[in-house]
Amino acid sequence: MDGHTLEGIIAYPVTPFSPADGGVDTDRLAALVDRLVTAGCHAVAPLGSTGESAYLDDQEWHTAAETALGAVAGRVPTVVGVADLTTRNAVRRARFAEQAGADAVMVLPLSYWKLDEREVTRHFAKVADAVSIPVMVYNNPATSGIDLSPELMVTLAEQVENITMVKESSGDVQRMHRLAQLTGGELPFYNGSNPLALAAFAAGAAGWCTAAPCLIPGPVLELYRAVREGRFDTAREVFQRQLPVLQFILRGVLPSTVKAGLALRGLDVGEPRRPLLPLDEERTRELTELLAVLDLSGSQV
Amino acid sequence: MDGHTLEGIIAYPVTPFSPADGGVDTDRLAALVDRLVTAGCHAVAPLGSTGESAYLDDQEWHTAAETALGAVAGRVPTVVGVADLTTRNAVRRARFAEQAGADAVMVLPLSYWKLDEREVTRHFAKVADAVSIPVMVYNNPATSGIDLSPELMVTLAEQVENITMVKESSGDVQRMHRLAQLTGGELPFYNGSNPLALAAFAAGAAGWCTAAPCLIPGPVLELYRAVREGRFDTAREVFQRQLPVLQFILRGVLPSTVKAGLALRGLDVGEPRRPLLPLDEERTRELTELLAVLDLSGSQV
Amino acid sequence: MDGHTLEGIIAYPVTPFSPADGGVDTDRLAALVDRLVTAGCHAVAPLGSTGESAYLDDQEWHTAAETALGAVAGRVPTVVGVADLTTRNAVRRARFAEQAGADAVMVLPLSYWKLDEREVTRHFAKVADAVSIPVMVYNNPATSGIDLSPELMVTLAEQVENITMVKESSGDVQRMHRLAQLTGGELPFYNGSNPLALAAFAAGAAGWCTAAPCLIPGPVLELYRAVREGRFDTAREVFQRQLPVLQFILRGVLPSTVKAGLALRGLDVGEPRRPLLPLDEERTRELTELLAVLDLSGSQV
Amino acid sequence: MDGHTLEGIIAYPVTPFSPADGGVDTDRLAALVDRLVTAGCHAVAPLGSTGESAYLDDQEWHTAAETALGAVAGRVPTVVGVADLTTRNAVRRARFAEQAGADAVMVLPLSYWKLDEREVTRHFAKVADAVSIPVMVYNNPATSGIDLSPELMVTLAEQVENITMVKESSGDVQRMHRLAQLTGGELPFYNGSNPLALAAFAAGAAGWCTAAPCLIPGPVLELYRAVREGRFDTAREVFQRQLPVLQFILRGVLPSTVKAGLALRGLDVGEPRRPLLPLDEERTRELTELLAVLDLSGSQV
Repeated sequence: MDGHTLEGIIAYPVTPFSPADGGVDTDRLAALVDRLVTAGCHAVAPLGSTGESAYLDDQEWHTAAETALGAVAGRVPTVVGVADLTTRNAVRRARFAEQAGADAVMVLPLSYWKLDEREVTRHFAKVADAVSIPVMVYNNPATSGIDLSPELMVTLAEQVENITMVKESSGDVQRMHRLAQLTGGELPFYNGSNPLALAAFAAGAAGWCTAAPCLIPGPVLELYRAVREGRFDTAREVFQRQLPVLQFILRGVLPSTVKAGLALRGLDVGEPRRPLLPLDEERTRELTELLAVLDLSGSQV
Repeated sequence: MDGHTLEGIIAYPVTPFSPADGGVDTDRLAALVDRLVTAGCHAVAPLGSTGESAYLDDQEWHTAAETALGAVAGRVPTVVGVADLTTRNAVRRARFAEQAGADAVMVLPLSYWKLDEREVTRHFAKVADAVSIPVMVYNNPATSGIDLSPELMVTLAEQVENITMVKESSGDVQRMHRLAQLTGGELPFYNGSNPLALAAFAAGAAGWCTAAPCLIPGPVLELYRAVREGRFDTAREVFQRQLPVLQFILRGVLPSTVKAGLALRGLDVGEPRRPLLPLDEERTRELTELLAVLDLSGSQV
Repeated sequence: MDGHTLEGIIAYPVTPFSPADGGVDTDRLAALVDRLVTAGCHAVAPLGSTGESAYLDDQEWHTAAETALGAVAGRVPTVVGVADLTTRNAVRRARFAEQAGADAVMVLPLSYWKLDEREVTRHFAKVADAVSIPVMVYNNPATSGIDLSPELMVTLAEQVENITMVKESSGDVQRMHRLAQLTGGELPFYNGSNPLALAAFAAGAAGWCTAAPCLIPGPVLELYRAVREGRFDTAREVFQRQLPVLQFILRGVLPSTVKAGLALRGLDVGEPRRPLLPLDEERTRELTELLAVLDLSGSQV
Repeated sequence: MDGHTLEGIIAYPVTPFSPADGGVDTDRLAALVDRLVTAGCHAVAPLGSTGESAYLDDQEWHTAAETALGAVAGRVPTVVGVADLTTRNAVRRARFAEQAGADAVMVLPLSYWKLDEREVTRHFAKVADAVSIPVMVYNNPATSGIDLSPELMVTLAEQVENITMVKESSGDVQRMHRLAQLTGGELPFYNGSNPLALAAFAAGAAGWCTAAPCLIPGPVLELYRAVREGRFDTAREVFQRQLPVLQFILRGVLPSTVKAGLALRGLDVGEPRRPLLPLDEERTRELTELLAVLDLSGSQV
């Protein structure tokens, strides 16, 4: 895979846990991944934030990576998330992903102590040097505790050969305009903030990384098609229709919300790992209604 | 004028001051307003933030309002800015604007002490009740010190008959999606954040309130035409082309930057009022270059 | 007065408005100022934030300044607040204050457009140059919209002869430690954040600028005495006792809260000026109880 | 140990790493801990933020805990830090610490996804229930990504029997006043923000948790003695004297700074773990000077 060919809807699966022992439920993970590919998503990105990768031990992480890659089976690109506090563990996981068949890795520099630019740069360079597949630099200050400026991300892409893509989840569309400006539109960037989906495509995003296809693959893909075909009025209408669900997902803890939604969609993927708690009853009821309204509106189109 | 008919590029003139006595330079103000209308702007909005209205005494404010309205001469709608710390003065100025022929007023609730929702609501209701022309609720937390939520702005529009438009300058496109969501797209909203111009139109904004036409009317109007004709790839290209100038304007104090730019464009409108200082030499040079690059690129299209 | 001699509790009076015509109620203002001096406050500071000076027109401002100075009648120093958007008006008001007999002026640089350091510096220099009495630089980002760093304030004091005092209301005690550090403890600084009263004195503050003496002069002065006599355990106890009232005052709009409290204390000073609204019933009840609890605890000491 | 008896200077050791294999250097860790106890610190807190515990694998963590406890050898209380993303691992580490002889554990709820109050509460309850030694609730939003309000921390202490202490590192002294207010001064709280040391003691803090004794034990203990003896003017002077070093430590990454400082103090504890990088030359020079100035001033007292 070449960074320039990753486009469209890049879907995050959650990591199902077995009610029996709390371990990774590989059957359900494979089933979910298959659903995403079958629905028409253009790529799958396991072990991202949605996949609770920060809460997995090494063995669990390996199992989840292998299971997801096996289930995709090369039908679409697979981008494996690598988010670790230490460089040595990030290197180890990136190598594992490559050997297991990942098409790319998406690297998020977790922080306990805030890293400076030297430290961030070295971390990305070490991880990228350890593999030969493309690396996507991932900015998500809300979860990682580090905010990567467009300038820094572009510099990383310029300095390290296999850093070829950027993912922006800060929720600020001006960062995307800045990325396009700094690179003359040459560096593909991906949106990771659901309520920014429309604005990001207007800004020229190559794709949308999202867990929403776990619950509402139809509207997500419909939005993408409208954008690609230049029908912006339709895109805006489709976006507004799904916006309540996107906002709901963003408001809470994503794995908890998506796991609750998957149960409503007939796939019981268990609970999130503690300290994360399952969605409570009231919010589950709210999600049920939002999905019902969207399903109904969709069938009328 | 009906709120629903205000659309497109709504241009802010600065308020020129006379080098002789520091007062409002009515000749230059009239000349600038005429330039904006002649260039094709769809409306003019004097005495906004760009117009240094917060720095004018009552007599100066009256003079500037009458001069701008006289220069527009009904060729396009005129929306007069009303931003005051006290309700009684805001009422007085709104009435003056109506009597002088304004088509609408744009009301920004200045704060010294942070106002609560009761206080903001009462302020807007009193000002709107004092006039019969449409009122645009204006959110600009960076200058006013108050952040009006989409929910509050929609409530104001529902409760007060002649509040019929909303202007959003917080720089967050999600506020605009929320406005559209809360009103089913029925309440016209206007973007007041230059670097958000493209995203705002993608979100369904009815117009763009901007001082940029003082310096670069061509690219601003070209962006609007591309959007209206559904040519989003062109719109993005035109937007990226003018983005450096929009970013430059936003980075500094707007009246200082625009006044420096107008001098470069051959219209000497004097200095901003103290404590605001004129743009320094280095930044003036930078602006000169940015305008030259944009002019050149524009002539190649 | 020399800047170095201003010490202790510097009390802010509110500006009473007449229910009849909404103008400044000079009788009540004089009565309130007299109360503050009689209670033992070490200085009086009219026309600060508490005094709603931002909401007064020029004539009202003159009247309030003259009334307060007349009522103090030289018994303690009077520090008049000067907070204006334009430099020319700040100069005018500072001169008026000096001619009316003020011992010092406390200058807050209001912002509509954010001022840069050049602009802030020039504003302070122009105002200070216009008078010969001492100037207190006042940092209150929450109301003024500008945050003056300790470094900038110290530079101002070094560069302008009659800038001899600093007031810090950002609520961050580390700013005060920094002020002491930068000047070897030589520049007197004053605390303007009520809940920081104890920490500020521990940090070496020369005084506490506060509206609290309008309502609870006893505990405020008791805290100061304990600090000056080196009885820190007592100071902490006295501080904790009055903390609920200080927190309550801070939580709302200060003039509204203090005016409601003065009515409870038997001095009806009217309502705050619109858009500010009087304290609502529920919060007035809450304030009544907090004052009652404190009065009772005080009598037991 | 009873929570009420933990008082004074609670010193954090760094975790030395061996240059040979990058593993925990137990000899140096033991030597450093012994230094801290010998210097007169009132307690030792290994595996806190300073101890890079977030960057250790389980085996390393066990080794460091056992080494530190062995080196303290019961001479003073030892409080072991427990900061984990998952509840199950936090439980495991807390149990290990108790079995290894810890007098208390200090629990920081790390976040990837932001936890809500239900989740935080359950996390603390599960960890506290798993041990019988006292638990200190630790708030440090800058590193953990979660901000625990004083109200929540007090509720935790009320609901869970062996939660008996609170540590506040947000840097806001008003949180400490609030803690004292909510509990009538009955819940011991500890300051974890170095530049707040003086203000925290003025607010009634039972102790100061700090890495500063690794570098400047004398001034740190001197400050504490002055406070305890009610000599606040001396305390302020001693605090101002060491403030430049405290600010320097805070500005960078603490383990990097303290490790550089320990090398300057003659104890080579190796480098911090990647992605953390050693202090660069310029900043090491700056630290060298700050320590020299402080040493010299100390000898003159």
